[in-house]
Amino acid sequence: MSNSKIKKLQSLLKKEDLDALAIVPGSNFLYLTGGNFHLMERPTILIISKHRKPIAILPVLEIDSFKKLNIESDIFEWQDSDGYQSAFNKAFEKLGVVKKIGIEGQRMRVFESKAIEKASANTEIINAHKFINTIRLKKAEDEIMSLQKAIKIAEKSLNETIKYVDVNKTEMEIKNFLIQQLYHLGAEGIAFDPIVLAGGNSALPHGHSSDYKIKEGDCLLFDFGATVNGYHSDITRTFFVKSASDNQKNFYETVLKANKIGLEISKPGLSLHELDDTVLNTLENSEFSEFIVHKTGHGLGLDVHEDPYVMRKNYELLEEGMVITIEPGLYKKESLGVRIEDDVLITKGGCKSLTTFSKQLTII
Amino acid sequence: MSNSKIKKLQSLLKKEDLDALAIVPGSNFLYLTGGNFHLMERPTILIISKHRKPIAILPVLEIDSFKKLNIESDIFEWQDSDGYQSAFNKAFEKLGVVKKIGIEGQRMRVFESKAIEKASANTEIINAHKFINTIRLKKAEDEIMSLQKAIKIAEKSLNETIKYVDVNKTEMEIKNFLIQQLYHLGAEGIAFDPIVLAGGNSALPHGHSSDYKIKEGDCLLFDFGATVNGYHSDITRTFFVKSASDNQKNFYETVLKANKIGLEISKPGLSLHELDDTVLNTLENSEFSEFIVHKTGHGLGLDVHEDPYVMRKNYELLEEGMVITIEPGLYKKESLGVRIEDDVLITKGGCKSLTTFSKQLTII
Repeated sequence: MSNSKIKKLQSLLKKEDLDALAIVPGSNFLYLTGGNFHLMERPTILIISKHRKPIAILPVLEIDSFKKLNIESDIFEWQDSDGYQSAFNKAFEKLGVVKKIGIEGQRMRVFESKAIEKASANTEIINAHKFINTIRLKKAEDEIMSLQKAIKIAEKSLNETIKYVDVNKTEMEIKNFLIQQLYHLGAEGIAFDPIVLAGGNSALPHGHSSDYKIKEGDCLLFDFGATVNGYHSDITRTFFVKSASDNQKNFYETVLKANKIGLEISKPGLSLHELDDTVLNTLENSEFSEFIVHKTGHGLGLDVHEDPYVMRKNYELLEEGMVITIEPGLYKKESLGVRIEDDVLITKGGCKSLTTFSKQLTII
Repeated sequence: MSNSKIKKLQSLLKKEDLDALAIVPGSNFLYLTGGNFHLMERPTILIISKHRKPIAILPVLEIDSFKKLNIESDIFEWQDSDGYQSAFNKAFEKLGVVKKIGIEGQRMRVFESKAIEKASANTEIINAHKFINTIRLKKAEDEIMSLQKAIKIAEKSLNETIKYVDVNKTEMEIKNFLIQQLYHLGAEGIAFDPIVLAGGNSALPHGHSSDYKIKEGDCLLFDFGATVNGYHSDITRTFFVKSASDNQKNFYETVLKANKIGLEISKPGLSLHELDDTVLNTLENSEFSEFIVHKTGHGLGLDVHEDPYVMRKNYELLEEGMVITIEPGLYKKESLGVRIEDDVLITKGGCKSLTTFSKQLTII
């Protein structure tokens, strides 16, 4: 299974002006090998070559875990006390002449890249992040099933958590409860540290939960996800505590309108630019245009944020099988933040929201 | 508070052959600013200069979170659709002539380093990971208190979890229960995905929990930690399910002896080399010497693995206030893995184990 994905990447590589790719632990490594290693201080690298079987550079303590994956490969191991450079040198000797190697520039760290540089003095190192990610753009059926499971767990957890919410509970307490629910309902992990923000704090798009006690009239924003088989859900819903003012309602409905338009128009062939532009236009043409802070969304899969990015000036086209988030938001500083985020599968003639949690304005 | 740490780093920087440092989200960023940002696809960089106040390069959606930290700084912001390069260019223009800039080579990713390179063509980029980390080597009292809280939560959670353990429960179920306990007892996060491995799986030092059902006679290894105020605990205990054979007992006692020797000899002035050497010698001189896979330990704090590394050939010396792990292990392939890990504070004349969970061979 995994070997077949590596072969697919090798065949794509043949069309590129690259001799090899170097993959570090993370989503691509997991996708290609099934192996979920830590990105730690010990370099762990898989080299996919155009011409030969893969080469793995591994710290000794990961060898057995790697062998269990049954990846046809040559292994170069290194011990903590010896350092990793000589394993890199031997690996690149085995690899032969490499004019250009592609790396995951958004994931590989500088010290790993330097070790490749040292091991292969005449090799040009290219950021092939974008190319490597292309193999994961369109999701297969088993990937969509994992995403759906991750979404189901997230939505059930949210349902339980809003029952738990009450005035005077802190953001931290609510976040903590939500996480327990996620695990209780079968998540293998959390997609990221949940964002649970109330009142004025909700205006920080990536704020951290605090000891702030929620009070009547606050909005309460949840942005979180569960992980299943490595696949992440990513859902945002914003509620109001006990009551909502007319202004809050208008603010909410404006965001909801933008979210719905995104879902209406998404289909194969639409550019990411056009999608973001249409969604942002909806916000820009509202009375709340000054409160726009971010783009519409991102790809979703083994990474929480991955290609394709739903962003103006990104002229790539949506394709069947892609999964993206549609998550417009408005943020009025120190007062009110609303974001509504769905996980959306691009289908043959349109799209389907995998998230099904109600988006009606809800007072809890 | 945070500004004073930045000033301390600036004064250390003056003695170095470096004009500035570039810090990305993570432990050093958190230590220096109090800000806990995501290391994501959007470059977020703090530049600490020898000669002027810090410069922050930030995606627009993080500006308000950053301003809340009250860091005296110049901010250069960028929008998703414009890209980040021009913010880098402007920031380095403001910074003035920089001959050498130090980066966190083990944390900064290649694309961020490339953006610095582009913005500052004549600047030499140096991996200053080691130098930057020196500011966090010795822990202050408030840091030790956070570590102790994180340890207490972990130990209580383990106590609850071993009551839950039973024959036929899977590794995954037990891990999932443990995580719920950690959050329930007040962890703000988990230090890393807990390693819960039984029977032969325990012989994989960084293995992942599976659907394997534990059975009588299995060993059961827990390696995990809680996070409090950003500080992580990291504790390993190995139990036996229902019964333990004489061979298992000898294996366990050998690891325990090595762990205890490490605690006996740790004190200011001892080299990390000597500590690892003595602990490993204990294992090497046993009947189980062929089952050694890794070194003795690592520093612990805002990173789960940080300087100093307890490793042969590391001739740095222990100092009062350092916190390290002492975690010898033995791994017999597909059969038995035992690791016993304490979090150890180096004190004036010796050391103190912050972990207090029993290390007696325990049958559960």
